[in-house]
Amino acid sequence: MLKVGLLGAGRIGKVHAKAISSHPESRLVAVSDVDMGAAEALAAQYGAEPRSNEAILSDPSIDAVLVATSTNTHSDFIEAATRTGKAVLCEKPVDLSLARAKACQKAAAATRRPVMIGFNRRFDVNFAALKAASDRGEIGKSELLSITSFDPAPPPISYVKVSGGLFRDMMIHDFDMACWIMGATPQKVTAIGSSIVNPEIGAAGDVDTAVVTLHFAAGRIAVIKNSRRAVYGYDQRVELLGSEGLLSAGNVIENTVVKATTAGVVSAKPEFFFLERYMRAYAAEWAAFVEAVTKGTALPVTLDDGVNALAIAEAATRSAKTGATVDMATVMG
Amino acid sequence: MLKVGLLGAGRIGKVHAKAISSHPESRLVAVSDVDMGAAEALAAQYGAEPRSNEAILSDPSIDAVLVATSTNTHSDFIEAATRTGKAVLCEKPVDLSLARAKACQKAAAATRRPVMIGFNRRFDVNFAALKAASDRGEIGKSELLSITSFDPAPPPISYVKVSGGLFRDMMIHDFDMACWIMGATPQKVTAIGSSIVNPEIGAAGDVDTAVVTLHFAAGRIAVIKNSRRAVYGYDQRVELLGSEGLLSAGNVIENTVVKATTAGVVSAKPEFFFLERYMRAYAAEWAAFVEAVTKGTALPVTLDDGVNALAIAEAATRSAKTGATVDMATVMG
Amino acid sequence: MLKVGLLGAGRIGKVHAKAISSHPESRLVAVSDVDMGAAEALAAQYGAEPRSNEAILSDPSIDAVLVATSTNTHSDFIEAATRTGKAVLCEKPVDLSLARAKACQKAAAATRRPVMIGFNRRFDVNFAALKAASDRGEIGKSELLSITSFDPAPPPISYVKVSGGLFRDMMIHDFDMACWIMGATPQKVTAIGSSIVNPEIGAAGDVDTAVVTLHFAAGRIAVIKNSRRAVYGYDQRVELLGSEGLLSAGNVIENTVVKATTAGVVSAKPEFFFLERYMRAYAAEWAAFVEAVTKGTALPVTLDDGVNALAIAEAATRSAKTGATVDMATVMG
Amino acid sequence: MLKVGLLGAGRIGKVHAKAISSHPESRLVAVSDVDMGAAEALAAQYGAEPRSNEAILSDPSIDAVLVATSTNTHSDFIEAATRTGKAVLCEKPVDLSLARAKACQKAAAATRRPVMIGFNRRFDVNFAALKAASDRGEIGKSELLSITSFDPAPPPISYVKVSGGLFRDMMIHDFDMACWIMGATPQKVTAIGSSIVNPEIGAAGDVDTAVVTLHFAAGRIAVIKNSRRAVYGYDQRVELLGSEGLLSAGNVIENTVVKATTAGVVSAKPEFFFLERYMRAYAAEWAAFVEAVTKGTALPVTLDDGVNALAIAEAATRSAKTGATVDMATVMG
Repeated sequence: MLKVGLLGAGRIGKVHAKAISSHPESRLVAVSDVDMGAAEALAAQYGAEPRSNEAILSDPSIDAVLVATSTNTHSDFIEAATRTGKAVLCEKPVDLSLARAKACQKAAAATRRPVMIGFNRRFDVNFAALKAASDRGEIGKSELLSITSFDPAPPPISYVKVSGGLFRDMMIHDFDMACWIMGATPQKVTAIGSSIVNPEIGAAGDVDTAVVTLHFAAGRIAVIKNSRRAVYGYDQRVELLGSEGLLSAGNVIENTVVKATTAGVVSAKPEFFFLERYMRAYAAEWAAFVEAVTKGTALPVTLDDGVNALAIAEAATRSAKTGATVDMATVMG
Repeated sequence: MLKVGLLGAGRIGKVHAKAISSHPESRLVAVSDVDMGAAEALAAQYGAEPRSNEAILSDPSIDAVLVATSTNTHSDFIEAATRTGKAVLCEKPVDLSLARAKACQKAAAATRRPVMIGFNRRFDVNFAALKAASDRGEIGKSELLSITSFDPAPPPISYVKVSGGLFRDMMIHDFDMACWIMGATPQKVTAIGSSIVNPEIGAAGDVDTAVVTLHFAAGRIAVIKNSRRAVYGYDQRVELLGSEGLLSAGNVIENTVVKATTAGVVSAKPEFFFLERYMRAYAAEWAAFVEAVTKGTALPVTLDDGVNALAIAEAATRSAKTGATVDMATVMG
Repeated sequence: MLKVGLLGAGRIGKVHAKAISSHPESRLVAVSDVDMGAAEALAAQYGAEPRSNEAILSDPSIDAVLVATSTNTHSDFIEAATRTGKAVLCEKPVDLSLARAKACQKAAAATRRPVMIGFNRRFDVNFAALKAASDRGEIGKSELLSITSFDPAPPPISYVKVSGGLFRDMMIHDFDMACWIMGATPQKVTAIGSSIVNPEIGAAGDVDTAVVTLHFAAGRIAVIKNSRRAVYGYDQRVELLGSEGLLSAGNVIENTVVKATTAGVVSAKPEFFFLERYMRAYAAEWAAFVEAVTKGTALPVTLDDGVNALAIAEAATRSAKTGATVDMATVMG
Repeated sequence: MLKVGLLGAGRIGKVHAKAISSHPESRLVAVSDVDMGAAEALAAQYGAEPRSNEAILSDPSIDAVLVATSTNTHSDFIEAATRTGKAVLCEKPVDLSLARAKACQKAAAATRRPVMIGFNRRFDVNFAALKAASDRGEIGKSELLSITSFDPAPPPISYVKVSGGLFRDMMIHDFDMACWIMGATPQKVTAIGSSIVNPEIGAAGDVDTAVVTLHFAAGRIAVIKNSRRAVYGYDQRVELLGSEGLLSAGNVIENTVVKATTAGVVSAKPEFFFLERYMRAYAAEWAAFVEAVTKGTALPVTLDDGVNALAIAEAATRSAKTGATVDMATVMG
């Protein structure tokens, strides 16, 4: 039974608390949060104790820590937790600073403790089936990947300002997806972004609509589209063209009911946002972490993956500003 | 907190045990089974006690009983449990004998205790959305209902022999669905059945493929198709034609991946069988039961509904044998 | 070059005139109609001559006659045209009277001239693909056929009164489809019909909503649903369950545009009615007729097929009135 | 009756010959080709005369000329035909040289004769419906356009060598589609291309897989994906994200049959290539040309549109080579 401490009792912390508690081989023992009331409420719901971060990190009986705090604390907690021998599952991104993330990567690696980054989409049953079919060679050699990833509505401007920007905050998921599906990291990155959805986002120095192309070895290409606003719901689709066919993974819709009237034929919308669409993916993510940690096998997503995705985000941010293609070698150093 | 005793620790009992335990307002306290080992294992898994049926029924601290035993015991347990003041959720069908079911209905009604029959499909999100849209008048007046309900593979012949036949065992779900969606019970029933899938089913006096038409008041019609074998998976669809449109609820598929190759465009199959397709419906069913029992509100499915569906099954069985349309008045008495 | 005379310049006559003229191996030489103005206009459009029926039938230079006149004249024209040595393509139904149709069948057979009945749906690319896949054994042995066939709106009452009723006028297409797809004629027929759409249809002694089950040898079943009103358009679908799978042929929709908004995901409607849906099928039907007649090969649809479908319509009409299953032997005599 | 001369009796010339002949208000009077035998055969099929280009261009009774010759002659024929007072419908592209195309544009404009470029996709019923819905404001302000355009198989290397490259030969259609749908021309172009499908294409200095982003005013973006190989058929899709929703136009498939077996659920493939997919679009294109020319109304596609698309192709070619975003002002001069 894996004893788990949860750092962060916010929206995503609650999702993880449920996944940890529902898993037959893990138990939530402690919850911390900057808002002690939130920690207390969540701990109570699952029979855990509210504690301070320090108390959790220094408790030798705790095997693993789930980091669901604000982004600027991720690196510190990864380092602290691995230092005290714990396995870590940390929410994305590793950090907003690539340099800081690399330092964390180095420090954590030295401890040889398992650190997984929470790229939950890899555990979506649809994307996983697409990846598996591609890996089985069902469409031959993969050549051109397309990812559509639209949020239903933009976050508040206050969040935008501290988010690190669309590429680090939102498209980082897609960067990881692209590397995972293509089985490689890109050599070059070309980005274009604009603020169409909300001019305040542009005023805050960010974009809300963006298209990024990733250039892989041997001429393989990935193109990622992001928008902060798709009023019909969370639009999460992947298409992969290969030498022998096309694989596509579509949206999960709210129900299968179709209504035909004089006004047309109406189907249900995509599930609204990430909590709806990826609820089962979070459970599968946690199960994969528990299995790897308890069996000592390879993690399905690593801290290296987190640093790679952040480096691509860094390159995309630079490319969108200059209009020039960015060589990943100049970013990775 | 509703304290629940579970009678029956077989396949469907396990599904219910999980639903009872996962619900925040109910607790599984005891499990019985003719196979004591099965009861012990299931009880252990959820922190409940293995007990005899009698011990459960006579325990005044138990508020509700879930009956998931073999069909021939349903009526007895409904009567016994209501007599000792418990709320009951009983798996379908109420009984194989309509006369016995009616006696049970009368006895249970005298206790005024809530008895719900486990017509789980009403709680499927897709069918529920269709029903809600129809009730909101989105397609005007409903006129012609079609239900397609195919199992992936026929049950063993040993099961067929004690099942009461396709109409009582399998199509009874669809009879209930038809009455629920149409908001009425039929006046006449016309059935045709044959044994195509497996001649042994025919030799056992049953059919494996059947079409039943239900004649409702004002000329409204429902047609139900059943087959014991759809090799591609559990095929569960509903279509409702109304004066202002058509509503249809399609299958739930395993994932949204589509593969296009020279061989065609391939999508995933429907979820394999009822455990996959209706797992969430079982949880919703239990939640509806808990809410009605704890709040004292009307049950969404009643023992009367169970008796009605059984009466239609009786009529269908008779019609399939004689080739004549059966007036429900002759069955309901 | 097949020289063709067209009897009837109404709505369906115009469709055939176009098909005849567009075919590289046939030429429309003459057109007749009870309304001479209509014949003149249509003839002018395609460089043909307006003539009387008699003039067409007695012209030895005319190779083939297309009968698109009112139903009550079909048998007479089939007999007259075959007597004068012409090949005939006649619109459905052969006649409203089964006895008259059988007499016509006998008379025409004696001439050994080719007579094809215009069951246009067999030439729809979608239904033809389904039939071909079934014949190739792609779903094993076919067991349960379902045909959904809804018109967008009921015809005028004046038409209903002379139509011979829904079974002879509308469902006759589906009876032919069922026999064609199943590769057999049914042994028994069970029908249920009601007047829900328009009470005047009921007052005229007809039904507007009906479900018919056809019992084939070896327990195979077909079920046909008809409604005179599907406000969203012409609903024409076929599903065939076999021992190794399911084939379904869906509607043809107006375009592939899908619109996702907060109101849902909206697709185009089915093509509105038979002229839209089956325009290409009419051309393919004509091409098949020309090929068979010019090459002397077997017709894809025969006068026998027309008589068979009419006999099933007769049985269905009787079954719907009595509530009893009708043995086809009692109808075919 | 518009009298039409057709220059070019190759594959696409044949398509146009049929469209011209089928239109009630146009007549094909003459056909030319470098292969006189081809001209003779096509002319014979439609009752036209085989002639030389010069004879067609100098015949004052010919009202309009359809240019379906090899690309390097397009500009010359546009100039010659407009000089002799004819209306022109010319296949894309106007020329491979932007400078030459601009000179042609200037010369043709001086004659004030109508010149339409054959961007046939605008006349596809699906894309036209998407454009109309967008223009009606059904998804608010359009923000992000995506075009997927994959050929089933690459052309022969001999063709690739004279084609002007993927951007001028293939993606030029999509450049026109993007400008048409967005109702604007782009300000900047970023392109990435590679040769993955066939190394010989790369050796010939061309790409076979490419992604281009078009930057429009106000931050609006279009992204176009091209591949020379989609083994499952001609993949032609458009998606447009707007402030109030998403419009997408999907592929047209060969038929609506779906087969469900243990192997999955198989649908038909997209129609194979442009002749299948766009046959009706060619007829609609011709009808639009005839209507504009005979009524003297504005052409739906102009020579200016052809030059614009070519300029974008020029910019894309340059961007793909340099890796830098290209400002359209530097191309348009």
